[in-house]
Amino acid sequence: MSKILVFGHQNPDTDAIGAAISFAYLQKELGKNTEAVALGTPSEETQYALDYFNVDAPRVVESAAGETNQVMLVDHNEFQQSISDIRELNILAVVDHHRIANFETADPLYYRAEPVGCTSTIVLKMFKENNVTIPKQIAGMMVSAIISDTLLFKSPTCTQEDINAANELADIAEINLEGYGLDMLKAGTNLSDKSAEILLDLDAKSFPMGDKNVRIAQVNTVDLNEVLDRQEELEAAMENENSSKNYDLFVLIITNILNSDSELLVIGDSLNKVEAAFNVTLENNRAFLNGVVSRKKQVVPQLTEAFS
Amino acid sequence: MSKILVFGHQNPDTDAIGAAISFAYLQKELGKNTEAVALGTPSEETQYALDYFNVDAPRVVESAAGETNQVMLVDHNEFQQSISDIRELNILAVVDHHRIANFETADPLYYRAEPVGCTSTIVLKMFKENNVTIPKQIAGMMVSAIISDTLLFKSPTCTQEDINAANELADIAEINLEGYGLDMLKAGTNLSDKSAEILLDLDAKSFPMGDKNVRIAQVNTVDLNEVLDRQEELEAAMENENSSKNYDLFVLIITNILNSDSELLVIGDSLNKVEAAFNVTLENNRAFLNGVVSRKKQVVPQLTEAFS
Repeated sequence: MSKILVFGHQNPDTDAIGAAISFAYLQKELGKNTEAVALGTPSEETQYALDYFNVDAPRVVESAAGETNQVMLVDHNEFQQSISDIRELNILAVVDHHRIANFETADPLYYRAEPVGCTSTIVLKMFKENNVTIPKQIAGMMVSAIISDTLLFKSPTCTQEDINAANELADIAEINLEGYGLDMLKAGTNLSDKSAEILLDLDAKSFPMGDKNVRIAQVNTVDLNEVLDRQEELEAAMENENSSKNYDLFVLIITNILNSDSELLVIGDSLNKVEAAFNVTLENNRAFLNGVVSRKKQVVPQLTEAFS
Repeated sequence: MSKILVFGHQNPDTDAIGAAISFAYLQKELGKNTEAVALGTPSEETQYALDYFNVDAPRVVESAAGETNQVMLVDHNEFQQSISDIRELNILAVVDHHRIANFETADPLYYRAEPVGCTSTIVLKMFKENNVTIPKQIAGMMVSAIISDTLLFKSPTCTQEDINAANELADIAEINLEGYGLDMLKAGTNLSDKSAEILLDLDAKSFPMGDKNVRIAQVNTVDLNEVLDRQEELEAAMENENSSKNYDLFVLIITNILNSDSELLVIGDSLNKVEAAFNVTLENNRAFLNGVVSRKKQVVPQLTEAFS
């Protein structure tokens, strides 16, 4: 039985890694020869969860070629966010909670998407449907993913299902949700020792919008000013990314996880589209977005609409 | 609460109509304001099932505009097979068993696809997951859809899940699977009183392949020669369709439901791609395909590969 690689998106966050680990485990229990891998190294937030639950970080791969032609995707579907040779591979399954775009297959497949806050919430449902017991370590990675994606239930993407799933998994993982959750989120806000280039790449995704190529990065912080003090350095790095990687527009979302709002910093073409999308006037390339914490629900659809 | 239209693909078959009826019923039981509609009138096979179970044919619509902007798709996802204004609509859910292609959304959605033989098999699973009882009439339409899509379990697309689902639904619908199934399939093979144009449109779907636009129609018969005797008339109608609707290639699959094999009749460009796809030599625009009954599994992937 040939190997099946299971992975989340590029620049993996805690759900991309946690859902890969848990879904690969579930599929292995169901008799498939799966291995969880990752399209990048874990963030400090994810590494906190891996260390806490004593789980090895998944092996990092850039392509599947030479290993296998069978893959399962979690927490993404858009090809430009996936493994480099995705178009050459046979996609057996997808479990995701994002819009569907830039995705196609030649054959029927298993696709499970739900508009919930976290892929791991759907994976929990699949464990139950298949009557597979969840080990403590796996539950720990799953609840960490839910905490991360919902910013401890404060994101508008969070549903009652996510909250119920997190509570159920927290019991198995033997953690206190609030205490563990805030510690884990704070572990991901240590930005001061990172270069602007690394900071822009921590959690970044590309989206074709109209005929433009838009890069949208997000960083979490407990102090907006700590990041905004580096605006000049960040702008230079964003300009450099735009010209070297052919992005037309670079949007950086700086999210305060304590107050649940964000500052946008944008560089590139089509700044008027950004202003239209959020009904704001950019000043010094910046705009404050009250109550905005979710790229998926509060940034991507609005920008997509403005570019359409 | 604004209305949600639920429908299957253009040129609806028994699953497109049966799954729309059953999924709309399920969603209504779960509190949604759904209405099952259809993108065309029922075939004689589907009408046999509707009459048998005393179910009204769904209202036929060409667009959703003016009624609602919310829809749920069953038994298809590709936009060119869907309602005419699909790109303007908000797709809340998809339940399907085909490849995913030419499909995208701006927002996260509920998407449930499984590589089984029939959409209604997946819908049955969803009834159970939600603890909703299936009325006899609904079960009757669902089992009819499974019989239709799997040609009474003879298609290679048929899985053990489809067989189990059909048996379970047959009990609720109070039918004998073999007896009812063959009667229903035969009701769809009455081709002699139909013009070539109507015959080509009974169960036809379009597929972009490479830079070509390929139309693939399928008819069921209990006597291949009854259809092949009309080859000249069919070819003229296929040529006419190609030129009036900009198809580059028209493929007609004439399937003998008793022997479970098919004759291909093809008109248009790229006939060498057809020969390569099925490893056959066309003679008189025709080729016999032993054991081939499934467009989805035995025709579309092979042609897609030949055109890629």
